[in-house]
Amino acid sequence: MTDPDILGAYRFDRANDPSAGTPLALVRPTTTAEVQTVVRWCAATATPIVTRGTGTSLSGGSTAVDGAVTLSTEKMRNLTVDRATRTAVAQPGLLNAEVKAAAAEQGLWYPPDPSSFEICSIGGNVATNAGGLCCVKYGVTTDYVLGLQVVLADGRALRLGGKQLKDSAGLPLTKLFVGSEGLLGIVTEVTLRLLPPQAPACTVVGSFASVHAASRAVLAVTSQIRPAMLEFMDSVSINAVEDMLSMGLDRSAGALLVAQSDAPGPAGVAEVELIERAFADCGAGEVFSTSDAVESEMFTQARRAAIPAVERLGSLLLEDVGVPLPELPALIDGVAAIAADNKVTISVIAHAGDGNTHPLIVHDPSDVDETARANRAFGQIMDLAIELGGTITGEHGVGRLKRGWLRDQVGDDVMDLTATIKAALDPAGILNPGVLL
Amino acid sequence: MTDPDILGAYRFDRANDPSAGTPLALVRPTTTAEVQTVVRWCAATATPIVTRGTGTSLSGGSTAVDGAVTLSTEKMRNLTVDRATRTAVAQPGLLNAEVKAAAAEQGLWYPPDPSSFEICSIGGNVATNAGGLCCVKYGVTTDYVLGLQVVLADGRALRLGGKQLKDSAGLPLTKLFVGSEGLLGIVTEVTLRLLPPQAPACTVVGSFASVHAASRAVLAVTSQIRPAMLEFMDSVSINAVEDMLSMGLDRSAGALLVAQSDAPGPAGVAEVELIERAFADCGAGEVFSTSDAVESEMFTQARRAAIPAVERLGSLLLEDVGVPLPELPALIDGVAAIAADNKVTISVIAHAGDGNTHPLIVHDPSDVDETARANRAFGQIMDLAIELGGTITGEHGVGRLKRGWLRDQVGDDVMDLTATIKAALDPAGILNPGVLL
Repeated sequence: MTDPDILGAYRFDRANDPSAGTPLALVRPTTTAEVQTVVRWCAATATPIVTRGTGTSLSGGSTAVDGAVTLSTEKMRNLTVDRATRTAVAQPGLLNAEVKAAAAEQGLWYPPDPSSFEICSIGGNVATNAGGLCCVKYGVTTDYVLGLQVVLADGRALRLGGKQLKDSAGLPLTKLFVGSEGLLGIVTEVTLRLLPPQAPACTVVGSFASVHAASRAVLAVTSQIRPAMLEFMDSVSINAVEDMLSMGLDRSAGALLVAQSDAPGPAGVAEVELIERAFADCGAGEVFSTSDAVESEMFTQARRAAIPAVERLGSLLLEDVGVPLPELPALIDGVAAIAADNKVTISVIAHAGDGNTHPLIVHDPSDVDETARANRAFGQIMDLAIELGGTITGEHGVGRLKRGWLRDQVGDDVMDLTATIKAALDPAGILNPGVLL
Repeated sequence: MTDPDILGAYRFDRANDPSAGTPLALVRPTTTAEVQTVVRWCAATATPIVTRGTGTSLSGGSTAVDGAVTLSTEKMRNLTVDRATRTAVAQPGLLNAEVKAAAAEQGLWYPPDPSSFEICSIGGNVATNAGGLCCVKYGVTTDYVLGLQVVLADGRALRLGGKQLKDSAGLPLTKLFVGSEGLLGIVTEVTLRLLPPQAPACTVVGSFASVHAASRAVLAVTSQIRPAMLEFMDSVSINAVEDMLSMGLDRSAGALLVAQSDAPGPAGVAEVELIERAFADCGAGEVFSTSDAVESEMFTQARRAAIPAVERLGSLLLEDVGVPLPELPALIDGVAAIAADNKVTISVIAHAGDGNTHPLIVHDPSDVDETARANRAFGQIMDLAIELGGTITGEHGVGRLKRGWLRDQVGDDVMDLTATIKAALDPAGILNPGVLL
């Protein structure tokens, strides 16, 4: 498809990179065989391919490239759930929420839950090894991928892994493709491990005078238990969410923590009490607990709404930096200093329980000076995370936006190895050019 | 070290491959830098290297090769446990049990538990992506590896990942090395994720008239809950263990299932009742439940002792085949048929809850005809697992013994990709030659 109006709709993803190109053509295959046909044509003509799910990448992973075919997986939507093996076999274009819903219909649970789960594709989740809110206890996408079908850069289709829960036969190639951001092949089918349903969770919400107090409370919890969720919102995001949703959040709070325990029975009661005590000990002004599912979901939704809510204040540069947990207060303090230095608003929200934070740098793209300061802050925050022994991306992927910082994090030798593997699997470099390397 | 007596002790691993070679030399480095020195010398002289932990490989992964240096990690034994990040940083020569014990001292838990956990090295666990008894609920080694230090075939040392729980920066190289059986690099340090301690478990033991009834009971449990353990022993192994340990197992049983639930409070009670009911419904003659830790450990020990106990009956060819759970009865029935056809004793023990079985083919190596029949059965069982959509190895690795069957399982294209990656990372093929490829 080469209709300019339609191609225009496939230029950007949620990173809104102003330097996005325009697809040479858009293809929307429905089967692995059709993907193979596209890849073979591209290989024969040395045409690059950008693979795109629903275009929710926050790091420019699916931004169009001039001269490249955009391969959208949006029509690859087959899904079967097998109760006997507790697995789902999904094509990549399905939404995460659709996989969750289909699993739930069979009394099962697919845990990974990016905040965008209602609009992001499972293929994109696999490409970035996506996380979410519950992964502090339940792990990330790779922990649920048992098997893949992948089309390589030369058009061959491979089956890797399968429904068996344990498999040590051969190199761990399934794992190599999860999180490889479309550089090594195009995932056309994924076999996912499902769990028994999550037990009902109790939610504890604490409001704190400062982000520093809240970040200390995170450590007070995580040094003792592994909660099922432990989310962080700062004052800017609290007020932005309240502006959008009017749900009665405490606008005067410096920070809010939303924790959950899903341990059943007395163990859950003990966890909730421990969280309440940790919050109070770290100076929480108010601590509210509920076992009501509707109330719990309301607070989770508040956290999930934070990115779109803060986006109403201006354009965002979206960070995804993570640090080992003891460095969390240092990271949060450091981000505040970077905001002050650069005179920009940076709202911090975080999957605090696993040290993964999303500083959101607000700026007006028509203000050249502010945009320059925002961009400087964007780099400084990644530099800080690297200094603290952390990562420039916990769950969104490097994409095109963070490519300049990857070498600083992983070093020359790891970049060499990355290039070696890329060259071995995609010698002509046609798959997702501009990402990572 | 080139003393022939000492070299002789490093020829074999627990696979007892009669075609084992003799090491050219034995090196026992203590640091990453020393490993680099060895690898650089080997690279310069085109000398192959066999990396060896404690030599407990059941698939010949650390069997010596004529003309190759054997690099033993036995002296690489540093270990630190960090409570704040719930991680352990271990050198590869430590025993799995030592990592567990150090974690426990800090009130933490390292779950993966191969039956050989008291004698196998953590480096070997990483090389094979080792499993164990609790992985039906808690996953396998790769699920706990957050970071690695690896020496590549050219002598460079890389740091991959780290203590952060989530990291999507770059290709998932950490995961590529876990389970790669020493083909791509030598792991010199591993950062492991630890969990809060496991809750006390209740154990349910069921004895069944037939292996078929027991395998149906496995499905009756796993289709409803995810137990913390679900182990299977057949009549041969029950009697062999009873001969060795005299613990009062029911010698007349056709099969025994040992299940555990570690769900706390009422949820655990419900799980135990469900397991008891499932066992009874599938015809268990006797069902015994206990929440006593000592009694529970006794039954777990019985299962762990099965391989050494059956080994007293003769030499063993050790299988590690796995199938999707619904195929478990077909696999177990098929193994019985293969035993009858080949007139050999095959004892089946299994991590039944995840479909991973260990048929043990008993034979007398001095009986040429019986050995030939045992070898034929060894191949037929792997063929059967492949036919049933399963794997030739769930947790032991392909090593040297199962190399001939890997292509049948994964296909030509996956073998090509495996060779491509091996050639890209180790072009001279000096690392662990004869394994996988």
